[in-house]
Amino acid sequence: MSASQRILVVGSVALDSIRTPYGEVTEALGGSASYFSFSASHFAPVSVVAVVGEDFPIEHRDRLLERGVDLAGLEMAPGRTFRWRGEYAAELGHAHTLETQLNVFADFHPRLTDAHRRTPYVFLANIDPELQLEVLGQMRRPTLTLSDTMNYWIARKPDRVFEVLRRVDIALLNEEEASALSGETHLARAADRLLDRGANAVIIKKGEHGALYHSREERFFTPAYPVTALTDPTGAGDSFAGGFLGSLARFGRSDGAAICQAMACGTAMASLAIESFSPQRLIGTAPPEIEGRVRALHHMVHYDLSPMF
Amino acid sequence: MSASQRILVVGSVALDSIRTPYGEVTEALGGSASYFSFSASHFAPVSVVAVVGEDFPIEHRDRLLERGVDLAGLEMAPGRTFRWRGEYAAELGHAHTLETQLNVFADFHPRLTDAHRRTPYVFLANIDPELQLEVLGQMRRPTLTLSDTMNYWIARKPDRVFEVLRRVDIALLNEEEASALSGETHLARAADRLLDRGANAVIIKKGEHGALYHSREERFFTPAYPVTALTDPTGAGDSFAGGFLGSLARFGRSDGAAICQAMACGTAMASLAIESFSPQRLIGTAPPEIEGRVRALHHMVHYDLSPMF
Repeated sequence: MSASQRILVVGSVALDSIRTPYGEVTEALGGSASYFSFSASHFAPVSVVAVVGEDFPIEHRDRLLERGVDLAGLEMAPGRTFRWRGEYAAELGHAHTLETQLNVFADFHPRLTDAHRRTPYVFLANIDPELQLEVLGQMRRPTLTLSDTMNYWIARKPDRVFEVLRRVDIALLNEEEASALSGETHLARAADRLLDRGANAVIIKKGEHGALYHSREERFFTPAYPVTALTDPTGAGDSFAGGFLGSLARFGRSDGAAICQAMACGTAMASLAIESFSPQRLIGTAPPEIEGRVRALHHMVHYDLSPMF
Repeated sequence: MSASQRILVVGSVALDSIRTPYGEVTEALGGSASYFSFSASHFAPVSVVAVVGEDFPIEHRDRLLERGVDLAGLEMAPGRTFRWRGEYAAELGHAHTLETQLNVFADFHPRLTDAHRRTPYVFLANIDPELQLEVLGQMRRPTLTLSDTMNYWIARKPDRVFEVLRRVDIALLNEEEASALSGETHLARAADRLLDRGANAVIIKKGEHGALYHSREERFFTPAYPVTALTDPTGAGDSFAGGFLGSLARFGRSDGAAICQAMACGTAMASLAIESFSPQRLIGTAPPEIEGRVRALHHMVHYDLSPMF
């Protein structure tokens, strides 16, 4: 893995306490930058810019280091680490947030070193769009930039969210976010509307219904991997982002086939993430399992078109 | 188009009065057998077994004949034609039935001639599962049988619906029907459950989220065609069935690639059906437009997988 493949992620590192119908965990390693890093680390080298408190367990740091993740940008600030407590009902569709303690994350201000600024691939996780723009402004001619967002920012700073969409190469949104931001419930129209408003390309993540890529030139689609051992949906989106950007960085291409394969890689990583609490499965997986899922996804949609009429 | 490609459809021919946010029609040609026939007729020869009343307009009959549909099995019974009146709200998701007049359809009993019994391809539209089983029992070694159903029968005769699923080669269900019949809301699990209960293969139609094929050996997926001129969703499922079975009949193959291409043909025909009231677009379309949509669907998912690790 070379420097030309390196990915910078700016996001959160958190301690999550989660209950689902399949069990619960307390103060497990969570946060968008964590899920993203574990996922992407199977494809390309990753550098994290995030903040934790003085109470952040050393073993969590070690798990990231063991996956080769560069933590030079993981600041330790006085105070407690960001904590999130949530639960999922039987359908596992939506997290119900029980408690959010921003703690040290409340004053988070990404500090980029010169090395960070020269990183070719960038993932802006779902932090304040003002911070996302600040990071983008500091990057030195990145090869490819990818953003995420959340309803919280769409409701409060829609113009800033749109500005991020205009500035990044590809923006990730889930169904709800795409509808909220575009004002369209029909997703093909929602995607068109976001492009009309200046987005370069968007990926709409539809959970068990797969993911849709729209740019002005192209539309691509990947189905979801048919997971039956669903355990905890937390981190699915960030794991998708990690597999997606990881695959693009690994191959150094962003043509149609590379985008399609990257969507399958993102889907495979998301499917692994939701089979366990915290990023356990993402940490424990290995190339043969990842490739097996990507091949299965490819097989689900691949055929040679016969002449029709 | 040869006799070895011929498709028999047993279903309803109706007069539909429909209102959507985009307009309305009164006593337009409708019914599962009508949508199916117009759709399939672009791929293979079709014979209809259905019933209409003495008031059935001659011009509707002519439109079917003009598409080469064999109406020898379209019985005319004393009384009025089956009528359905419905409306769709802004989301166009679910039809709200305002009135159903079964009329001559109430006593419909499919009468199959010897030629009908020897037809190689069979589509059992969403009629009473007892009638579907009666038709199946009369068929002489069909090449491929396809069924549809509806929540009305799932609620009233679930065991008979399961019996149909066991007897046909492929069963079509929409999301709601698959959940109701399997007791599972997660669709991958719903499909597994239906196979456990004896189905040979199922296709779960997910509207704008595409369609999923599950057998014990294979899973295939097609995205929806990104329609933006949505007008009236009536008949989408039967039009899918027509394109799907039409394509299989045309090629005389049911291997994985044939199933995948047939799902794309079904999706293309469904996308045309919903762009107009009644089967107008299905009647007016032609091979280049159909093939264009199938190619677009293929392009959305097709890529050559690169070695990953």
